[in-house]
Amino acid sequence: MEKKAFQDYYTEDHSHCYGCGRLNSLGLQIKSYWDGDETVTVFHPQACHTAMPGYVYGGLMASIIDCHCTGSAAAAAYRAEGRAMDTEPPLRFVTASLHVDYLRPTPIGGELEVRGKIIEIKGRKVVVAATLSANGEVCVKGQVVAVKVPEKLG
Amino acid sequence: MEKKAFQDYYTEDHSHCYGCGRLNSLGLQIKSYWDGDETVTVFHPQACHTAMPGYVYGGLMASIIDCHCTGSAAAAAYRAEGRAMDTEPPLRFVTASLHVDYLRPTPIGGELEVRGKIIEIKGRKVVVAATLSANGEVCVKGQVVAVKVPEKLG
Repeated sequence: MEKKAFQDYYTEDHSHCYGCGRLNSLGLQIKSYWDGDETVTVFHPQACHTAMPGYVYGGLMASIIDCHCTGSAAAAAYRAEGRAMDTEPPLRFVTASLHVDYLRPTPIGGELEVRGKIIEIKGRKVVVAATLSANGEVCVKGQVVAVKVPEKLG
Repeated sequence: MEKKAFQDYYTEDHSHCYGCGRLNSLGLQIKSYWDGDETVTVFHPQACHTAMPGYVYGGLMASIIDCHCTGSAAAAAYRAEGRAMDTEPPLRFVTASLHVDYLRPTPIGGELEVRGKIIEIKGRKVVVAATLSANGEVCVKGQVVAVKVPEKLG
């Protein structure tokens, strides 16, 4: 039995996101998991996700990093409270800022692995750093400042 | 007769980008133009480009800002050399870094306007700042450091 991804715990209202919503049939539907103290997602770009021929589109990678990090922020907030992700009240985060450094062109054709590290949890804010690798080589680094959605919107 | 967009001058090799390639039928195909000393693009998100219901997906806005700013960097580099965009050799830029601040949720349904300002042109590097507005209100700010593609790849 496959373990559930962070995004599988999102409430229905939070499951339409183009990047990570399980109910968005046209979206990317990324799935993020814990791997020890890091978080991980794996994504297979389609042929259309091209920058220049042979390389992955930067905006796609920014999108994956964004959704993976907000998901990681939610998972980290539950963990910090000693709660499972299916307990109430739900915790959900949105992006306040996104920074991405493209270190080298990212080859298209294989899978991309994004790993997240929780840098800081403070009040409503969680900071997550990410690396994106292709063929075991880090091609992109990112950082997301995620902010907890107020309960009335959550 | 409609004036040509920056992206309409890209060589065929640079016209497959998911964000701005005129030859990528599945992509966003953004089109950027000069408006005085600023650059502008207008984009209509589709229903699938949702974050939470009613709001635009942040990764889409990061993608539009990214491609608009690399296009603006190219246009600015031609202008700095006193050349038209259809003259040789071609100038084309890729993203070294992308920073996006999400100031408020961006309502979905209307058009998004992204405006770029050239902050710096120095050697192979061009820095472009961008604002993204919906209904006349700035919802997102971005900054891109773009780097000229070496001629052998251009």
